Amino acid sequence: MSKLKVGILGATGLVGQLMTYYLSRHPWFEVMYLGASKASAGKKLREVVQEKYVPKPIPDEVGDLVVEEIVPEKIPKELDIVFSALPPNIAKDIEIELVKRGFTVVSNASPYRLDSDVPLINPEVNLDHLELLKLQERNRGWRGKLVKNPNCTAAILTLALKPILDNFGIKKVIVATMQSVSGAGYPGVSSLDIIDNVVPYIPNEEEKVENESRKILGKLTGEGIEWANIRISATCTRVPVLEGHLETVFVETEKDCSIEEITKVLEEFRGPPQEMKLPTAPEKPIVVRYEVNRPQPRLDRWIYEGMAVVVGRIRKESAFKKGVKFVLLGHNLARGAAGIAVLIAEAMVKLGYI
Amino acid sequence: MSKLKVGILGATGLVGQLMTYYLSRHPWFEVMYLGASKASAGKKLREVVQEKYVPKPIPDEVGDLVVEEIVPEKIPKELDIVFSALPPNIAKDIEIELVKRGFTVVSNASPYRLDSDVPLINPEVNLDHLELLKLQERNRGWRGKLVKNPNCTAAILTLALKPILDNFGIKKVIVATMQSVSGAGYPGVSSLDIIDNVVPYIPNEEEKVENESRKILGKLTGEGIEWANIRISATCTRVPVLEGHLETVFVETEKDCSIEEITKVLEEFRGPPQEMKLPTAPEKPIVVRYEVNRPQPRLDRWIYEGMAVVVGRIRKESAFKKGVKFVLLGHNLARGAAGIAVLIAEAMVKLGYI
Amino acid sequence: MSKLKVGILGATGLVGQLMTYYLSRHPWFEVMYLGASKASAGKKLREVVQEKYVPKPIPDEVGDLVVEEIVPEKIPKELDIVFSALPPNIAKDIEIELVKRGFTVVSNASPYRLDSDVPLINPEVNLDHLELLKLQERNRGWRGKLVKNPNCTAAILTLALKPILDNFGIKKVIVATMQSVSGAGYPGVSSLDIIDNVVPYIPNEEEKVENESRKILGKLTGEGIEWANIRISATCTRVPVLEGHLETVFVETEKDCSIEEITKVLEEFRGPPQEMKLPTAPEKPIVVRYEVNRPQPRLDRWIYEGMAVVVGRIRKESAFKKGVKFVLLGHNLARGAAGIAVLIAEAMVKLGYI
Amino acid sequence: MSKLKVGILGATGLVGQLMTYYLSRHPWFEVMYLGASKASAGKKLREVVQEKYVPKPIPDEVGDLVVEEIVPEKIPKELDIVFSALPPNIAKDIEIELVKRGFTVVSNASPYRLDSDVPLINPEVNLDHLELLKLQERNRGWRGKLVKNPNCTAAILTLALKPILDNFGIKKVIVATMQSVSGAGYPGVSSLDIIDNVVPYIPNEEEKVENESRKILGKLTGEGIEWANIRISATCTRVPVLEGHLETVFVETEKDCSIEEITKVLEEFRGPPQEMKLPTAPEKPIVVRYEVNRPQPRLDRWIYEGMAVVVGRIRKESAFKKGVKFVLLGHNLARGAAGIAVLIAEAMVKLGYI
Repeated sequence: MSKLKVGILGATGLVGQLMTYYLSRHPWFEVMYLGASKASAGKKLREVVQEKYVPKPIPDEVGDLVVEEIVPEKIPKELDIVFSALPPNIAKDIEIELVKRGFTVVSNASPYRLDSDVPLINPEVNLDHLELLKLQERNRGWRGKLVKNPNCTAAILTLALKPILDNFGIKKVIVATMQSVSGAGYPGVSSLDIIDNVVPYIPNEEEKVENESRKILGKLTGEGIEWANIRISATCTRVPVLEGHLETVFVETEKDCSIEEITKVLEEFRGPPQEMKLPTAPEKPIVVRYEVNRPQPRLDRWIYEGMAVVVGRIRKESAFKKGVKFVLLGHNLARGAAGIAVLIAEAMVKLGYI
Repeated sequence: MSKLKVGILGATGLVGQLMTYYLSRHPWFEVMYLGASKASAGKKLREVVQEKYVPKPIPDEVGDLVVEEIVPEKIPKELDIVFSALPPNIAKDIEIELVKRGFTVVSNASPYRLDSDVPLINPEVNLDHLELLKLQERNRGWRGKLVKNPNCTAAILTLALKPILDNFGIKKVIVATMQSVSGAGYPGVSSLDIIDNVVPYIPNEEEKVENESRKILGKLTGEGIEWANIRISATCTRVPVLEGHLETVFVETEKDCSIEEITKVLEEFRGPPQEMKLPTAPEKPIVVRYEVNRPQPRLDRWIYEGMAVVVGRIRKESAFKKGVKFVLLGHNLARGAAGIAVLIAEAMVKLGYI
Repeated sequence: MSKLKVGILGATGLVGQLMTYYLSRHPWFEVMYLGASKASAGKKLREVVQEKYVPKPIPDEVGDLVVEEIVPEKIPKELDIVFSALPPNIAKDIEIELVKRGFTVVSNASPYRLDSDVPLINPEVNLDHLELLKLQERNRGWRGKLVKNPNCTAAILTLALKPILDNFGIKKVIVATMQSVSGAGYPGVSSLDIIDNVVPYIPNEEEKVENESRKILGKLTGEGIEWANIRISATCTRVPVLEGHLETVFVETEKDCSIEEITKVLEEFRGPPQEMKLPTAPEKPIVVRYEVNRPQPRLDRWIYEGMAVVVGRIRKESAFKKGVKFVLLGHNLARGAAGIAVLIAEAMVKLGYI
Repeated sequence: MSKLKVGILGATGLVGQLMTYYLSRHPWFEVMYLGASKASAGKKLREVVQEKYVPKPIPDEVGDLVVEEIVPEKIPKELDIVFSALPPNIAKDIEIELVKRGFTVVSNASPYRLDSDVPLINPEVNLDHLELLKLQERNRGWRGKLVKNPNCTAAILTLALKPILDNFGIKKVIVATMQSVSGAGYPGVSSLDIIDNVVPYIPNEEEKVENESRKILGKLTGEGIEWANIRISATCTRVPVLEGHLETVFVETEKDCSIEEITKVLEEFRGPPQEMKLPTAPEKPIVVRYEVNRPQPRLDRWIYEGMAVVVGRIRKESAFKKGVKFVLLGHNLARGAAGIAVLIAEAMVKLGYI
């Protein structure tokens, strides 16, 4: 089959660069358009990015593409998918404008994630929520489609929670995170703020984790998504780590569960992306490590091209009568942003949405 | 009054050095003896330590003291107090030997902390537990006394929990920590393990936090300590920070409490050390910060000479029906080890135990 | 005597904050005016700075001063000295405007530093260059005075070179620096660029070191400054250190010199600020450390309130027939910027220029 | 051809692990023996190493090999090459013992590197020095052979100097290094010493750089090596970087040379490993970067599997009449230790020494 044509908005940022990494080697997709701000326009991608945060150099056919200033009417109509790695304030209007013009937009930007007719997808967890696109079309009358991937911390968290929810039920989740500086984009966190330090606050992050997770883990009903009835409480901090978000998770389950049972359901978990053998799907979405001191961001973040999450230190939860606690790691830019967007698009293709 | 004579065991380690810092400027105490391993024996303190982790240089009268190899029978009998900053495996036998010989030992080492007749003291929290010394004398027939300060993370945690427990009751505590590398001593954590990384495991730390906190927050009864009936669950991690342990705390209270009420009881909390105006007592044991991104280890760890803890981000706990969550910081070597030992000794003097 | 009235331009930046630190405790000076950009105007200093990079909190009388937007005509005429910590592009016009209006401006900003009638002063090294002010008055017809302190790296370097130059002559200087991130201001260096990394380039820094050093070490002649006839070559890098610039220095001397002789002239060096007992002058401007692994930025940067430089590892230079190599440390914000500006002003008062 | 059998001494250390990485994928060599200290003996390699500092996991056929305690008489006689990554004090006697027994030992350990009949080889630079093996055989009467790779900093430096020496002559080299913590092995540098800091001293490093470089750049004469007549002066420091040594280099050349000429000879340089197409030889041993802020350790250290060095910031040297200055980076564990040893062995095979 001939490749689908894709474009990337915000191609020069950290998430955008990693999108080009995944898409420039893709068996189904071909990058035809790179959009960014005026500052980068007119130059080749290679000239405006330093390829610092991609695991391998960007191939020439994409590296030599000329970046264009984003003007909705000038975006080539033949694009089958537009990936958006735009900052929220810019994404807000442009994405809607593009969807109105008929584009399918898969977006990492936060606006509209909680809207009742916008699918917020973590492919192994809630791919069926793509059904919302029907409601979206009916409600909005858009010619195109808008699909969102979750906040990075929520993407990592809900992937690990999914098999626990399915097998044992979940009443409460308490999560304290240690998030890497790449989560704030570039230049992002000043070195003066983070060397020899932890900053115990990330604007709006806790609300996103608490709300998005409940939507993602929610059930598709006739009319929309019924958010999961789970009490979630998050404290999010920034640590001097370059990539990879670590989450310490404490879960109260409905049913009793042994460490062995939890370990088994995490290890054996597979979702639709694995069943459909999507190109960017990790062989195992959840990797369990048994060493007492893993996962660690530096050692484990790039497993399966950054697309799996890693769970370790699975223990009985002592504050709850029934439950489990563990340590969870995922690559914020990969599974948490660029990679998950590509995985969503692949599923949409396979399922006929594109 | 003439000063009390004190000695320090393990004077050359990180905790020992900070003990010399507090004690060399002390209005009541005079350092007469410095004990360490054979390797340092025969040299002046100044020659064997680099004074790296003390806020100010050690004065000459202590810096010029000659360090001696620890041999129980050679420790001068006139010492009124022996502070121990020994590693656990070495502390185990030597401390008992010294107490049998009649010394009063205030120790930072972990062995015996949970013994039913050994006071485990956080001075603002449970100074009345010193009463256990009577039981200790009766049980053991020791001529001296053995008193312990808590694990650093537990010391910081229980100080912040005390006013909440007293005013609102506590059912559950979930705590995820980001602990500094100085908590592992010197050389301690390899730079290869911690640069651009978090290590989500500290041997035995979680058990200490969970158990010691319940003993410290427990009630003195006729026969001993009745441990607090609180479910505590901890996940402890190591982060690339030099000094200061950050704790993200989630508390389920018995009574309902507003943010304002919690803030008020934390801010207004004072304990016996403040009332007795002990020299090393911080004016306020708990400092509340209102900025959204505080406390931070690098900015807040040395407040009140490292003897106060700092609480910030006080919020309603969303996972529990009644409760609070907050971020907590304390200096692990100061409030968590060297300083608290000195503060215990001061209280013992004031209360007539010494 | 009543205190002299001083103002600070750029009071909210890193250098400006440290100026308020030195000046708010000053026996001769009283801070009357704080100028900054529009963004901070109308708020108290305490509200707009986090006091992160000052060794002690700023006293209330200065912390409560309201910051004003800098408008030359609104700056109070009674100010005896205006300190400038403005960024270069902003400093350029405002400083000239103020000098024309009659103010004495002591500035940390780089523009005009190399002008032949602008004194570029490192007080222990070339205080006599203040004589240029006569030439400045004659040339420019300004009612006020403009005096500059050097680039931070040049300030640290020339202080250590001065006694070597005076005693043994200097033909060549090669210097490779490891500069702290605070040298780039706030937010300055992105954490994504510097964690687990070194950036081997700092814009314009090497030119400043090479040129300014030759002017500072130059001789006052009838007509101006004859730059020192020294070949200087610098490579400047940025390292993951918060404060303190480390310089590895290789010097070819004219006369032969032993390690002992070099050590002696460095240790015994005193300049006019020490002789005049200026309030901010360090007791010893150059501190020599004999340990094989010192100076180190974290351990040595704040010696004498950050106003001395520290020299260690003094060795025979093996590439040159005659010469010496050593490692040099200075606090870039203190001796290299805020503190040196205050020290210059003190000297100007003492010598009758103000 | 059937593969040559090789063994690795010190297989569990950082350098040994990276040797297993290169050798476990090698077209000519097959790892048959892993020796280490008693502590690791009897376990599979995979169980005793964490594979932290290898770019990809070690394949099963080597990961499952059982590590043996090193006892010279038990090392299998059929090994064609023994690679040594032993610490110097242990290497000293064992290596000689093995050579006497007839083994060919290619060693990263420092003892004997400067001996007049021991080849100290940087393959692109002085492969002809392998001729010394004849002298070695004559002098010592050993049945086997002992060949050394250089100190990591010297290996990186001499590779970059070689084309400059050949084309323009070199009179003086001044080098200031910023070396990564992995250069000190594991656990090596304490995190307490290096976070927010630089340590300006590495024991014995400067002597190694100064002496080994002169031997490597020296000429093979009838009787041995005539060391290069270059004055070399080094200051070596440790910085908070995980892998990769950065060197700031200042060179006085004999002939005048333009930036373009220097750049050209560096870029075009190839040595015997490239001509012989050795499996571990980088396509280009010296990579020139033109960006103003490169090379950087984190971004450039793994180029060509860590086997090339990267040169940037090539400028006219201003302290010398004729000369050049530049910034140089190499991977200390790869080009500087494990990889270079493998490359030496490949060359020895190709040239018939093995």
